[in-house]
Order: sequence, then structure tokens, then C-alpha cells
Amino acid sequence: MIRTGNRLNDQMRPIKISPGFIKNPDGSVLMEMGDTRVLCSAMLEEKVPPFLKGTGSGWITAEYSLLPSSTNTRSSREASRGKISGRTSEIQRLIGRSIRSVVDLEKLGEKTIWIDCDVIQADGGTRTASITGSFIALFLALKKYQQAGIIDEIPLKDYVAAISVGIVDGEKLLDLEYIEDSAAEVDMNVVMTGSGEFVEIQGTAEGKAFSRQDLDELLALAQKGIEELIVIQKSIMGE
Amino acid sequence: MIRTGNRLNDQMRPIKISPGFIKNPDGSVLMEMGDTRVLCSAMLEEKVPPFLKGTGSGWITAEYSLLPSSTNTRSSREASRGKISGRTSEIQRLIGRSIRSVVDLEKLGEKTIWIDCDVIQADGGTRTASITGSFIALFLALKKYQQAGIIDEIPLKDYVAAISVGIVDGEKLLDLEYIEDSAAEVDMNVVMTGSGEFVEIQGTAEGKAFSRQDLDELLALAQKGIEELIVIQKSIMGE
Amino acid sequence: MIRTGNRLNDQMRPIKISPGFIKNPDGSVLMEMGDTRVLCSAMLEEKVPPFLKGTGSGWITAEYSLLPSSTNTRSSREASRGKISGRTSEIQRLIGRSIRSVVDLEKLGEKTIWIDCDVIQADGGTRTASITGSFIALFLALKKYQQAGIIDEIPLKDYVAAISVGIVDGEKLLDLEYIEDSAAEVDMNVVMTGSGEFVEIQGTAEGKAFSRQDLDELLALAQKGIEELIVIQKSIMGE
Amino acid sequence: MIRTGNRLNDQMRPIKISPGFIKNPDGSVLMEMGDTRVLCSAMLEEKVPPFLKGTGSGWITAEYSLLPSSTNTRSSREASRGKISGRTSEIQRLIGRSIRSVVDLEKLGEKTIWIDCDVIQADGGTRTASITGSFIALFLALKKYQQAGIIDEIPLKDYVAAISVGIVDGEKLLDLEYIEDSAAEVDMNVVMTGSGEFVEIQGTAEGKAFSRQDLDELLALAQKGIEELIVIQKSIMGE
Amino acid sequence: MIRTGNRLNDQMRPIKISPGFIKNPDGSVLMEMGDTRVLCSAMLEEKVPPFLKGTGSGWITAEYSLLPSSTNTRSSREASRGKISGRTSEIQRLIGRSIRSVVDLEKLGEKTIWIDCDVIQADGGTRTASITGSFIALFLALKKYQQAGIIDEIPLKDYVAAISVGIVDGEKLLDLEYIEDSAAEVDMNVVMTGSGEFVEIQGTAEGKAFSRQDLDELLALAQKGIEELIVIQKSIMGE
Amino acid sequence: MIRTGNRLNDQMRPIKISPGFIKNPDGSVLMEMGDTRVLCSAMLEEKVPPFLKGTGSGWITAEYSLLPSSTNTRSSREASRGKISGRTSEIQRLIGRSIRSVVDLEKLGEKTIWIDCDVIQADGGTRTASITGSFIALFLALKKYQQAGIIDEIPLKDYVAAISVGIVDGEKLLDLEYIEDSAAEVDMNVVMTGSGEFVEIQGTAEGKAFSRQDLDELLALAQKGIEELIVIQKSIMGE
Repeated sequence: MIRTGNRLNDQMRPIKISPGFIKNPDGSVLMEMGDTRVLCSAMLEEKVPPFLKGTGSGWITAEYSLLPSSTNTRSSREASRGKISGRTSEIQRLIGRSIRSVVDLEKLGEKTIWIDCDVIQADGGTRTASITGSFIALFLALKKYQQAGIIDEIPLKDYVAAISVGIVDGEKLLDLEYIEDSAAEVDMNVVMTGSGEFVEIQGTAEGKAFSRQDLDELLALAQKGIEELIVIQKSIMGE
Repeated sequence: MIRTGNRLNDQMRPIKISPGFIKNPDGSVLMEMGDTRVLCSAMLEEKVPPFLKGTGSGWITAEYSLLPSSTNTRSSREASRGKISGRTSEIQRLIGRSIRSVVDLEKLGEKTIWIDCDVIQADGGTRTASITGSFIALFLALKKYQQAGIIDEIPLKDYVAAISVGIVDGEKLLDLEYIEDSAAEVDMNVVMTGSGEFVEIQGTAEGKAFSRQDLDELLALAQKGIEELIVIQKSIMGE
Repeated sequence: MIRTGNRLNDQMRPIKISPGFIKNPDGSVLMEMGDTRVLCSAMLEEKVPPFLKGTGSGWITAEYSLLPSSTNTRSSREASRGKISGRTSEIQRLIGRSIRSVVDLEKLGEKTIWIDCDVIQADGGTRTASITGSFIALFLALKKYQQAGIIDEIPLKDYVAAISVGIVDGEKLLDLEYIEDSAAEVDMNVVMTGSGEFVEIQGTAEGKAFSRQDLDELLALAQKGIEELIVIQKSIMGE
Repeated sequence: MIRTGNRLNDQMRPIKISPGFIKNPDGSVLMEMGDTRVLCSAMLEEKVPPFLKGTGSGWITAEYSLLPSSTNTRSSREASRGKISGRTSEIQRLIGRSIRSVVDLEKLGEKTIWIDCDVIQADGGTRTASITGSFIALFLALKKYQQAGIIDEIPLKDYVAAISVGIVDGEKLLDLEYIEDSAAEVDMNVVMTGSGEFVEIQGTAEGKAFSRQDLDELLALAQKGIEELIVIQKSIMGE
Repeated sequence: MIRTGNRLNDQMRPIKISPGFIKNPDGSVLMEMGDTRVLCSAMLEEKVPPFLKGTGSGWITAEYSLLPSSTNTRSSREASRGKISGRTSEIQRLIGRSIRSVVDLEKLGEKTIWIDCDVIQADGGTRTASITGSFIALFLALKKYQQAGIIDEIPLKDYVAAISVGIVDGEKLLDLEYIEDSAAEVDMNVVMTGSGEFVEIQGTAEGKAFSRQDLDELLALAQKGIEELIVIQKSIMGE
Repeated sequence: MIRTGNRLNDQMRPIKISPGFIKNPDGSVLMEMGDTRVLCSAMLEEKVPPFLKGTGSGWITAEYSLLPSSTNTRSSREASRGKISGRTSEIQRLIGRSIRSVVDLEKLGEKTIWIDCDVIQADGGTRTASITGSFIALFLALKKYQQAGIIDEIPLKDYVAAISVGIVDGEKLLDLEYIEDSAAEVDMNVVMTGSGEFVEIQGTAEGKAFSRQDLDELLALAQKGIEELIVIQKSIMGE
């Protein structure tokens, strides 16, 4: 099996991160990993969900969507169907939890930041690209709030990034693209912090269960990828 | 009143049309008019709505959506609210009717072409930009179907493009951007063919009714703009 | 082509307006144009939508519905389908905008008036009959509020009425009935004030684009019809 | 307690039944009992619900709706809320069952007849007026189908009519109007056939349970009313 | 026709009531009548619906659901379909009204008690079993609130229980199980108080209308059953 | 920190599995782990989802629901809210994937088996208890189909069971109950086969990221628990 562009098994696709891709959000990036392109943005709302009212704590909520034309065969529009799918709901919750894991919500204060991840083009790994890109969009927004005096300091505790790994035809691969993902025996999404700890591990056997040995190798691949992503995040964030 | 970039009253914003912006649809363009950016695409479905089954005729249907982060203040996601707004529904119907007006649906045969207009950045005129851009996306898709032998000839009867005009502070303006649009006394969207005839006129008094004289001047402005748009369409479509 | 009842091309159908058709609304009329019959009513709600709270301004909102048995073949009930159609939504918005265009919402004060247009029998022109009839229902309601001391003066700035015009078999016709409407090449709805200015123009080519010359002739027909309607409105409103 | 118009306790309100009130349905009546006015209609659909496909049996289904302006304070539109209320659903089911009880569905054949009951003005007893009126609308439709050769004979087994009875301030009353109904201790809707048998009895204690003696008296009142209604049905149906 | 277990026509199925079946609600019972098993519970909410705010009065609301696996062929899940059926809505309203008929809502104070009836196994008579069981669950909850000092006295005015009766193959039967119910010519649900008065009577002819004589015999059967149920309620409630 | 009943950190709660708890499904168990009680059932539908039609392959789909009264504070009913929550959707997908991982869908043939997991009482670990219990319910159903000649052999490839593990106050715990779960720093659900391989790993940091060392210890705990569960499954399944 030869990967697109002769990629090695432990090699990620070319990454391109374009900050400020659109003008209206407080922070935005176009996050590209190979042919996967996700527009990530962060916008402020001056209120919190009911369960946080009066607690002094803020909130970060994420929404995710595939544009109908982003996929190989057209994805029917969830607004037209009148409800979001289980897959979308699962991804939104994952992005939200991952980003919140590195934010000090007390320091943010009683505000909600909306993270929107809209997939312009889907070629595998859209949920992990969404997490990696949203973290930068959030940082850009927070910096803007700090400059505007809305917050005193940037309430981030660490970096956070994510990558997919999996087993295809018995090979362990880093950063699966769509044709690999759709043939994967095992599919795993891993979210880690800049200090190398885990925020989320979601591993699923598709057709064939996996051993402890497989798991260890997949986690090593993921860690390698995430470390590289965080280097890139740091360079963009000017740190 | 000075327009952004010292535009004249009868001058459109800079136009940029990027064909093939994304890889999966049969045809796609990123349509930009000033800061308004709409991703237009066309995709085939090998069936028709029930009312056309067995008639030999095809169909073209359009969907439109504002990305939540495309607007000044975040637009709540229609998929999350569980239904599309009246405004969205109205725009989708307008785009569909406008595009169908120049297609020979009999020649297309029993197929549906889905037009998707997703607004990446909204700065006024998103519905008219959607029409102008979708026509090119449709042409690109039809050309591909012809090359693939799915259709014998390109079933287009004419060009079609659209522009907004309006009255702001008593001035008649071509191609309103958002700050103009939100202050407009009269707002009009005009859709015309390459042969200079009308497909749609939708004029609305916002707060102040308008005279026959006003109407005539607005239609002249619109005609000027649409003629320019059709020149650009032709150059992109290689004709 | 001979029109029903040997109508001339520029002749409207017989008009019958029955004020006070039902007892519960603050104002109501049964509006009949030929076989088209719409029950229009106005009712007060002592609050405004969120975006107007605290502004001192009132609001007028309109809802429109076809009774299932009003049409040739039964229209499925929107309440049973769980959502209103794009067509209904478009018409509701048009009625609301048209009526608001002649009301001084500041003078109304922080109240909402609900306009309900329920089509008992549909034979073309239901949306324009709804506008013409609703204006009278609104006037009756406002007069009642004035008599009850709820408002000081009747906050109307002008009359408003609407009519459809179109091109059928190459003929320009005023006030299309259903069989004409369903065969129309061009269909146009026009809303005008008592002072002869335009509030809305919505013209649509159905299958064949129309020239500037066509447009001028259609607008002249519409103006003739609306002037007659406003004469009738005035006589009913006792002015 | 004096009833409106000095009605006796066992006296119904004035009844007016206008057959053919609208032109599109196969059968229609405007059913008026005092100020309660319901538009009842019957329309044919040439198919049956899935559970009857291939059985040779037909179906009758009923829908019911209060126009928003039919009630004292405006009833919000169920289409706008996106779902029908429990009350509406209950009434629709009652009308459907009641009408079906006197129809030979086998003889009707594999067709559905849609009964629509739209309340133009509500002043108590809308569900029972709907049943009594719908039976006539159905008869008119069936007669039309027979004349058109769609059915051989009219598949009715009996007459059916309905009335409300109740206890207000300790008094047993026939045919409650709204102000009586809203003060009733016991509220009962009774549906009976022309041969004097029961199709439905729905009695509800509102605040105070009722004795067997109360029940007997209420049923006698209902029987008296329904017998009178069936006399009127017969005269309209020309039998 | 021989009934399951050689039951007599006027004999109920074996009854088993297990108080405290689950630990979280304030009161709960597993109510079993033959193979019909309903889990009834009562839980407190410290607020009332809008129409009771500030009145000092409380409210009791009931919800009912068939588990998908409770029925012979799987019942599709209403949460997945996105709406509750007409049948469910009707039953929920019946349970709520029946329970409220014996509660002094003023004495309860501004609180809502939620009654949940979840059918674990359905074999006919689920709605009447729900009423009989919910009354005990409510009593258990009220006792708990009294002990906790939330209410001063138990605001119950009487007992309430319910049973189904019907005519099957010409035989009048008490407490129909599913195979009887699905073959019934007449189906009647009766709700009565401890003092022998009626709260609800809902009798429906399924295919064949019933006489006054039939009604009298069915009511006598129902009364017999309900008296037995109330004896059991009393023994469980320790009175 | 002392666990309920002095449980050790690596000790599961008492397990009780009652096969055949209800009579209508093809297979059912009441699965109890401590106070968590889930009713799991399997029912056959003789068709498959569209994407499998004509492939010869079967399908297994799972639905999950919390009874409103199963939780500490009442969970609002998803059927009443009109949609299932993101959490429910996520759990349903997890159960479905886990069960399908050990079924040979080709051998099952073109049928769907519906797995229903209804939580009667929730005290932590409901999703993992659902998986462990559903596997037995499925086995019972398959055995019944085999005996009825619907399938030739039981199409199971392995056992499957699931357990939760987590970190609470720095302690690694097996089988978290609700009070532990709601205080957990890390929460992990693990699904494994009888041959000791992984089907799913879903680990989430709640507030504090976890190290590789933590992960290894948690997986060891999970493996211990699942091995015990599979021993119990085998004894019930008579193998």
C-alpha cells in the first residue's frame, strides 16, 4: 500500500493554517491538512448557559458542520432535514470538551465563546483538524479580548491539538485521509496537551478488535503527530 | 455619503470568481464581490422529485446558508434550531427559480442538480452573488457531464446574473454592501438574462414607499451591473 | 382566450368585503375577489418581540394559511406536517412588511398586532387579497382601540392595497384567477399606497423572461387595479 | 342562571347548516350552532394508509383546527408552533372514529376520504358540531362519487350526530356554549347513531365527580338533542 | 370463549403492587395487572406552569410511554420519531385529569408533581393501570413531603382508581387483556373515586354501536372492579 | 475515600442478570450492577436499512433511553422535547457498534435486530451495563431464531462486555457509581471481547489531563472487570 504523495506511515499530510481567513469572527483560521479544509472561528456572546448563571464561570461551546458540497457524494443539509445527526452531535461534544480542557473558565468570566467548525472540504480527519484549528482561533479571539480590555489575561492553561491514527491493511498509520479511513480496521482519535498528556482517546474497532500491542503503537504515532502540530501552533501564536 | 473605496454610485465592488475552489462537487466557484464571499457548487443526483417522475424532465434545486461566523454578530445555526428561517427559504426559492429560468430541463433529462450556496463571509448582496456564482458552477458541472457522456449537449438557453440596487439617504446605489443595505430606504434585487430580459424583480420599500421614477432609475442601475457581470461570466466560461 | 365572465384584460373580478365577519378578533373582514375568499383579522397582544423591548415601538406580524379544503386538490395541513412551507413563509413576510409600511409603529406603542389571513377558498391572488383585506381589518381594530382609549390616534400613515398582474398567452392581464395564474408566463404582485407609490414589486418569469416594455405595461395595469381597491377601502372605512 | 337568549336547560342553540359553502371539496357545509361556526369538508384521495393496502377496505381520516382568530384570545397557530396540541389530536381522533362508525369501509373500496373541520368561530361545542356537520359533508361527497360512477352505492350504515351536555352550577344543560363550558363541573360529549345507539361517550368531571343519577340525566339530555340533530340532517340530505 | 386462567367475565386479573420499586422518585410503584406492568412514579418540581404563577395553586402533570419492547411487535420509540403520538397524548391527559380530580391543588401550594407512567410490559389496560398505580405513587410522595415538612397535610380529597370494561363476542367483560381488547366491539375506560362517583367515562364503539342497556351493564362491571381496586389501594396505603 | 459497601478500588458492584425479564421481546434481560438497572431487549424486524438492501447482510441497531424517574432529579422525557440529546445519540451509537463488532452480519442475513436499552434506575455505568446486558439479550434472541429455523447457526464471533473505569481524587477505580462518576477527573469506558481485545476505548479528561501511566493502570483495571463479566455471561448463556 502506497500512501498519497508517498507519505510514510508515521508522516502527516502537509499542513497549512491561515489565521484571519474571514473578517467577522473574533478569531478565525482556515485549517488545512492535505485536502481537508476546515474553517474554524471563535465569537463571543455576553451570557452563559442557565447552569452557569451567577457562578462567575464562563463557557465554551462548539458547533460542527459538513458543507453539503464538502464530501464525495453530497451530504444532505442538516438544517433542511430539521435535525443534526448523531455523528455531528458526537463531534460537537468532542470539540467542546477538548477545547474546554485547556481553558480556565473561571478566569474567562461569565461569557460564552462559540467555536464554529465548518468543513469546506472533507478528506478524513475533520474532527481532529477542527480541534487543532479551533484552539488557534480561540487564542486569536482571546488576544483580541485582552487588547480590548474585556479580559485581563489570556485564560489558557496549555496547548491542545488532535490527530487521527488507525490500522489499515494491518499497517499502523498516522493522519488518515478519507480512502484510508474508510478502509480502516481500527480508527482512533487522540487529543493531547502541550505537556504531553491525554485529553481524549476514542478508539474504535471497525470489524476487527485490536490488541494491547496495537494500542501502544497507535498511541505512539498519535503522540508524534500531536507534538508536531503543537510546534506549528506555537509558531503561529508567536510564542 | 462616501462609499467604501470611493466607489461611484453606479459602480460595483471588485469581483473575483475562483472556479474549482473545492474538489468534490461537479462544479464549484468561490464568488467574491467585495467582502461578500459565497461558495457555490453543483452536484448531480440521479433522480427527480416525485412530481417529475416519468416526465423525462430534470430539476434544479438550490440550498443557501449563512455560516454562523459569516456575519457581524453570529448567526445561530439553522441545523441546531431545527428549521430554516423564512429568509433562508425565500432566498433558496429565488436562486432555484432564477437558475431554472435559463435551463432546458427537458434536455437535462431525469436528473436533479443540487446547487449549494454557502456564505463564507456576508457583506450585503449574498443572494445575488449566489445566483451569479451558481450559474458558473452549474456550467462547469454541465461541461463535465457532457465530457463524461452523461448529457449530449449543455442544456443552457441563456446566461443569468443578479445584482442588488437600492436607495440610501436618497441616493440610488448599485451593489449595496452591508452598511448601505441596512440603512436602505428601498432595496431591490434584480435577476436578468444575457439577452437583457428580466427573470425576477423584487423591490421592497423599507420605511418609505418609492415612486415610478425611482423604480426606473433603479432598474437602469441594475441593468448596467448585470451586463458587466455577464461579461465576466462569459470570460470565465471561455466564450 | 376569454376570461371568466367575459372580463376584460384590465378588469378585476367582483369584489366583496364583509367587515365584522367573525366576532372575536378586534377587527375582521371576509375579503372576496371572485371566488377567492380570505378571512382577515387583527388581534392585540400586549407585548412586543424581544428586539423591540424598551424601544417604545410596536410591531405588526402576519400569519397566512390555506385551509386544506380551500384548494382544488387538498393542501396538506402544515400543522400536521410540523412545519410551514417556503411559500407560506414568503407570503407571511410579504403581508407583514406591506402592512407595516403604512403604520407608525412608534405611535402604536409597545404592542403587537397579529394579522391572520386564513384562505377559505383559493382561486388565485390570495396573497394580494390578504394584504388588501388585512389593511381594513387592522383599521377596524385600531378604531376599536382608539374608542377604548388604548391608543390616542389611529397610527396609519396611508392606505395600502395589492393586486396581481401577469402575462398569459402573451396577453397582459389584471387580477389573475387560478387557471390564468397556473398558465402565466410572467407573474407579478404589486403593493401600492394610497398616494400611488410602490411598497413591493415581486415579478417572476415563469418559463420566459420579460422585457422592459412588458414590465411597464404590467405596472400600469397594477396601478389601475390598486387605485380601484383603495376607493373601495375608503368607502368601507367611512372616509 | 339565565342562558343566552333565554334558552331552556334542555334546549339547543339555533342551528344553521349551509351545504356547499365552498366550491373545491367534494362535499362541504358551514355548520353553525349559535355562535359556533365550523367549516366541514370531505375530499377524496385515491390511496389508503399502509395498514390497509391490498385489503380492499377504505379509510376516513379527520383533521381539526381552530383558526387563530376563532377564539376569544388568539390561539397560536399550530403550524407555527410546529406541532399539534394534545387537545387537537384528541378531537381529530374522536371525529374520525365517530364518522367511521357509520361507514361501510369495505364498500367504499381502497380510497381515503379526508374530513377537514376548520373552526371559524368558537363558542363551545366545536368538536360535536364538527361531527354533526362532517357527516353531512361526507354524505354530499359520497353522493357526488356515486353520480360520477366512482362508487356504486352510498356506503353509509346509519346517521351520526353529536352534542355536548354538562353540569353548570348544579344544573344539567344541553349544548353548552363557551361561558357555560368554562364553568362546567361536568362536561360530556355524546355521539349517537340515527337508531339511537351510542358511538362515543366521553364524560369528564371538572373539579367535582358525578353520580350515577347525574350520568343518567345527562345521557337523556344528550339523546334528546341528538334526535333533533338527526331530524335536521335528514331534511338536508333530502330523505 | 374462555378467558385466560378461566377468569370469570366479572373477574379482574391478579393484581400485584410493589411500592418503592425504584429509589430515585419521591414515590414509585410497579403496578401489575396480569401481564400488564407499569412503573408509576411521582417527582417534585419547585415551580408551576405559567398559567398558575402567583395563584398559590399547584399542579400535577402526567407523562406516559410504552417501552419499545413492551409490546408484541416493537413500538417505535417516540423520542426517535421526534413526537408523541395522538394515543400517547390522549392517555397522558387522561391520567393527569384523573389524578388531579382528587387532589386539593391549593393545599399542595405552588409546586408541580410529575407523574411518570412507563409501561414495561403491555397486555391491555395500561392506561387504567397507570391511573390506579399513580395514585399510590403520588400518595407515597406526598407522605414523604409531609414527613420532610414540605407540606403540612396530605392534600388528597378521595381515592381514585380505574378499570377497563368492554364487549367481546357479545359478552360483557371486566378488565380486558390485549387479545380481548383487540377483538372488542365496545371498549370503555372508567375512572371512579373512593366514594363511588365518576371522574371519567370514555366509551367507544369499535365497529358496532351499543345500547343504553349495554352501557348500564358495563358501568356495573366497572364499579365492581374499581371497588376492589380501592380496597387494595387502602391496604397498601395503610389505612 | 471509602466506596459504598467498602468496595475495593478494583472491585465491581454486585451483578445480577435476570434473563427473560419481559415476555414480548425475542430476548430480554434485566441487567443490574449495584443500583444501576437496565432493561435490555432484542427484537427482530424482517428488513434492513436502505444501504444494506440486496447485500445479503443484516444489521443491528441500538436505542437507549433514561426513564425520567431513573435519575436523581427527573430527566425530562426526550419524546416530549421532540428530540434525543447528544448524550443519548452518542450512547446509542456506542452500543450498536460494540454489539455489531462480535456479530457476523452476513450470516445473520437481511434482517435487523433492534436492541433496546431502557434504564430503569441510573447509578453510573448505564452505557457499559447496556452493552454487557444487550449481548445476552441478543444471544437469547438468536437462540430463539435458531430454534425456530429462522437462522441456521448463531452468528456470534465472540463475547463482548464493557465496564467503566476512572480516576477520582487521584485513585484509580473500577466500575464507578454515580457519586464517583460525577467527581471523576478521568472517565473511561472500555469495551472488550472474550478473547481480550479492545472494541472501544473512550477516555475523557474531566478537568485534568492524564498521563500514559494513568492510562495503562486504567486499562488494566478495565480488563480485570471485563474478564469477570464475561465469566458471568458464559454461565448465563450455558457455555
